[in-house]
Amino acid sequence: MIKQTEIVLSAKNRGYHLITREIFDQIGDWPDKGLLHLFIKHTSAGITINENADPSVRVDFETIFNKLVPENDPDYTHTMEGPDDMPAHIKATLTGSELTLPITNGRPNLGTWQGIYLCEFRNHGGKRKIVATIYS
Amino acid sequence: MIKQTEIVLSAKNRGYHLITREIFDQIGDWPDKGLLHLFIKHTSAGITINENADPSVRVDFETIFNKLVPENDPDYTHTMEGPDDMPAHIKATLTGSELTLPITNGRPNLGTWQGIYLCEFRNHGGKRKIVATIYS
Amino acid sequence: MIKQTEIVLSAKNRGYHLITREIFDQIGDWPDKGLLHLFIKHTSAGITINENADPSVRVDFETIFNKLVPENDPDYTHTMEGPDDMPAHIKATLTGSELTLPITNGRPNLGTWQGIYLCEFRNHGGKRKIVATIYS
Repeated sequence: MIKQTEIVLSAKNRGYHLITREIFDQIGDWPDKGLLHLFIKHTSAGITINENADPSVRVDFETIFNKLVPENDPDYTHTMEGPDDMPAHIKATLTGSELTLPITNGRPNLGTWQGIYLCEFRNHGGKRKIVATIYS
Repeated sequence: MIKQTEIVLSAKNRGYHLITREIFDQIGDWPDKGLLHLFIKHTSAGITINENADPSVRVDFETIFNKLVPENDPDYTHTMEGPDDMPAHIKATLTGSELTLPITNGRPNLGTWQGIYLCEFRNHGGKRKIVATIYS
Repeated sequence: MIKQTEIVLSAKNRGYHLITREIFDQIGDWPDKGLLHLFIKHTSAGITINENADPSVRVDFETIFNKLVPENDPDYTHTMEGPDDMPAHIKATLTGSELTLPITNGRPNLGTWQGIYLCEFRNHGGKRKIVATIYS
């Protein structure tokens, strides 16, 4: 059994956002056992699993990724779409564009402290599309 | 056919550990063809595929990731759980929390030099749980 | 239904290469709905999803990843296979070795600007093997 849903996430500010609820609310019925695959259809935003409790973690994600991939490096050649664009592409590969999560006993089987992050790397990214595929 | 197993990995020192055997020994029967999904239920440890032969590779992983995401950066705001905590969260996203591997002819189909690493980013991480899902 | 194919990619120069066409041409028939899993059987090359249009993005990938993981760091201990080897292992973990993509209405469901990159981290990497598994 394969079930697929396209989810449109509301536009978010640049930064790291907990979207576990926004995603799960649009899944509908969960199978007893299986896998949930999430795929973001963009190259300047990412999805990842990380800490779901303290918002300061997500603040530090923004700080650290900006240090890892700084804007306005004079060596960039892809600069036409603004200083946030090329770093966004690199960050999307570092965080990843897709995730698979286990489903157990009719529920997504995340650890207690785990949530799904939308990593919005653009200053004005707009709405983002995610394809959710459940395998059971 | 979906088969799911929760695997508890023994506590390991901070660093990069080859866990291919520890994982595969707990899988039981392999299907002829399919996929194995592994998901670590923690946000301060990761799993990745890398070189399975020379232990010096795993030593250099520790060195390089510590340079990429240094401890005690004065810009960190999430510092209550110790200097190894916030870097651990970032490293978990850089390495990833989940992996899917192909199964071919009744065996996991890794390259000759590939193994599964547990990336233990905490100084005292303790036991780690992995959900293994086989799809066939 | 599971269908598996081993794909051999032609040898490529060090750098980032758009291989969407080279992969998809070897898949054959697409199911109406499902998932495509790609796994690269090497630890010094990676696969990732990123921008499919402007080649300058791929040039900047090479520049930025070389800054993130420089060659000839005196702290490396794994140096026997040349200065490009240990950085290649780290980069393979940063980009990832495997990807799952949704299939919708008989076609891979990528975003308009998304393509599959082969990330060739070695100076002379040679041919690279990818296992493609379709789940439907």
